[in-house]
Parts: sequence; structure tokens; C-alpha cells
Amino acid sequence: MHAPHRAIDFYFDFSSPYSYIASEWIEALAARHGRTVAWHAMLLGATFQVTDIKSPVSYPLKREYSMLDFERSARFAGVPLKMPAKFPIATQNAARLFYWLQAGDADRAVAWARHCLRALFARGVDLSDAPALQALGAEFGIPAAQAEAVWSDPQWKAALKAANDVAIALGVFGAPYFIIDGEPFWGNDRRAQIERWLEKGAF
Amino acid sequence: MHAPHRAIDFYFDFSSPYSYIASEWIEALAARHGRTVAWHAMLLGATFQVTDIKSPVSYPLKREYSMLDFERSARFAGVPLKMPAKFPIATQNAARLFYWLQAGDADRAVAWARHCLRALFARGVDLSDAPALQALGAEFGIPAAQAEAVWSDPQWKAALKAANDVAIALGVFGAPYFIIDGEPFWGNDRRAQIERWLEKGAF
Repeated sequence: MHAPHRAIDFYFDFSSPYSYIASEWIEALAARHGRTVAWHAMLLGATFQVTDIKSPVSYPLKREYSMLDFERSARFAGVPLKMPAKFPIATQNAARLFYWLQAGDADRAVAWARHCLRALFARGVDLSDAPALQALGAEFGIPAAQAEAVWSDPQWKAALKAANDVAIALGVFGAPYFIIDGEPFWGNDRRAQIERWLEKGAF
Repeated sequence: MHAPHRAIDFYFDFSSPYSYIASEWIEALAARHGRTVAWHAMLLGATFQVTDIKSPVSYPLKREYSMLDFERSARFAGVPLKMPAKFPIATQNAARLFYWLQAGDADRAVAWARHCLRALFARGVDLSDAPALQALGAEFGIPAAQAEAVWSDPQWKAALKAANDVAIALGVFGAPYFIIDGEPFWGNDRRAQIERWLEKGAF
């Protein structure tokens, strides 16, 4: 193991069910091993465009299986999840708000991410719908007019794009994606390997 | 759980490292739960053509990650694996021999599958190379001339194609793929979910 106390980099997409499941266990797992978590919102759609990768749900056979597996994997992890009627959805506005919050307070940005992921996957709130996202922001303490001003602001559009470009440059091609001491782990289903890595170092 | 004592259907591809890893644990796991395993050789390449899905190693970013993850996942499972220099490879001849053996003795076909998977992934034997595959057959007790006669025989070509068509019709879009009491599980990394399913039934 190279640097035992560095943060775990956690890349997630607001519209990714497996990212949601991982978002519910990553903090506790990291804490058990004396680690912190650096959260990075990304847009898988943009990544897929650059890498020519497609979402699993864009293939009919895989889509049917994935829908079943999202919910089964959530039950397996003990996380409440009900696939929303509209899926996948555009989440750039939620992600821009994430980077805006992060510039002031990283913990508050994490809280926003968890608030949004739970709203989408446990309550069926459509994050791509501007009024619904504004209502979610209001619950969180962000006035509706401010939320819209942030996601329309070229500064936060650019911040999200830059974060996505960095993720792609680091080789992040899916979500959730974890980088621990330089070692990449892709997928909610790498949880057991991550746990072993944190316990024993490289294996 | 619908029919607790039925076989676990296990779909594998001779050129799939995750299939190899799963092939090393599926029999013991099934036996612990009073189950048997029905092995089905398939050609992922043919499946990918029909479904328009691509191999993960056909995307540069995913390929690099996958190469690392194949070996790490093998170490995690305690299975010796060294990625062969040539990968992926064509494995229709090994698969035709599998169906030829299965017509006479299902256990012997399973032994052949394990013999080939271990040869490719632990010893670097190129199953796509006719003389190498014949030598492997000879180790197993199949004379070289007979091996070639089998894989050239339209009957065993058709048997493999039919098995592949059935797998696709059942929704098998990747490997390893498991169907247990009608429930599908895709991937070596669904091992823990399969174990829970066998222990407790549907969750």
C-alpha cells in the first residue's frame, strides 16, 4: 500500500443506480479503515460519448436484466431502491449545484449528492425536471431562484465539464468508480475487493 | 424459491476469464446447497453479434482496466490466472468437443471444460491453435485425429450453434451467466448474491 491515509476518490453519476447503492456504503466503509472520501460528480453520458461506450440499458437484453439487477443489488446491500419511471435522466443541473456547493463546503456538497440520489431512487423525484429539482433544492435550503441561477451559470457549467474531462483523463469510464492509492475499482460489485484492499493493502 | 433441487444453469465461454474464475467455484457452491450444475458452452462473439453488444476489451479504456481486474478478481477468488498473450481467442473447436463429449457423458464434458479453461488461463495454452488444442485433447485422452474430425463435423458445428441460439433466446448476453430457478445472474461478481439466493431463496 502506497499512502495509507489518503482519500478514496469516488466517481458517481446522479442517474446511476449502482452509484446510488455505493453512495450509501462508501462513507462507512472508508471510515472503518481510517479513510476519507472525495466525491466527484460526473456525467456518464459525456463519458460514453468520448469512449464510444454505451449504457447497459441501451441494449434491450441487457436493459431487462439490469432493471432486475439494480433492485436486487439494492436489496442485497440493504438500500431502499425503486427504479423511477423515467430512466436514465439528464442530471447536469444537479451536478452543477454539486460543484457550486463543493466550492464552499465539500461536506455540504456530499449531503446534496446523497439528498438527490435518495430522492431519485427511493422517492422517484425526477432530477431532470427543473421545478422538481428546485423543490428538492428548497428542501435542502437552496432558494429556487438561486438554484436556477447556479445551473445556468457558465462558471458551474464549465466546472462540471472540467471535472468530467479530468475523470476521463484518469481512465474513469463508468460509475461508480473508485481510485484508492492509484488502484482503480469499477462498480458497486467491487465492494468486497475494496474492503480487502483497505484491510490488507494490495492483493 | 420455486424448485429447490433443480440444476443451476451455468453459461460460460472458453475465452472468458470471468467464466474461468466462476468455473472454479460454481460446483462447490452448488454442492453446498444440494444443487447440481448444468454446464453450457457458448460463444460470446456470436452473442455479441446478435445483440450488438461489444466485448469490454474492445474499448481501450475498459480493456486496460479489465486486464487488471481479471487478474485481481482471480487473486480475490484464490484462482491462479495469468492473462494469455493472445486474448481474446476463437474457441469454437474446444466448444464443439465439449458438446460431442456431453452427448456421451456430461461429467466428462465438464472435466474437458475445466481442463481447457485451466490450460488457457493458468498455462497460456492457445485453444485457437489446432495443434495446441489437439495436444490438450491427447492429454485428456482424445486422439488428435479424432479431435479434428469432431470439430470439423457439421453435426457438432450445428450442436454448438443450436446451444448458442438457445442461450440468446433465454436472454444470455454475457458470460458467465447463471440461471437459478428462473432467476438470472450475470458475472463472476454475482457470487455473493447467488450464495444468498441458494441459502435463503428469493430476496
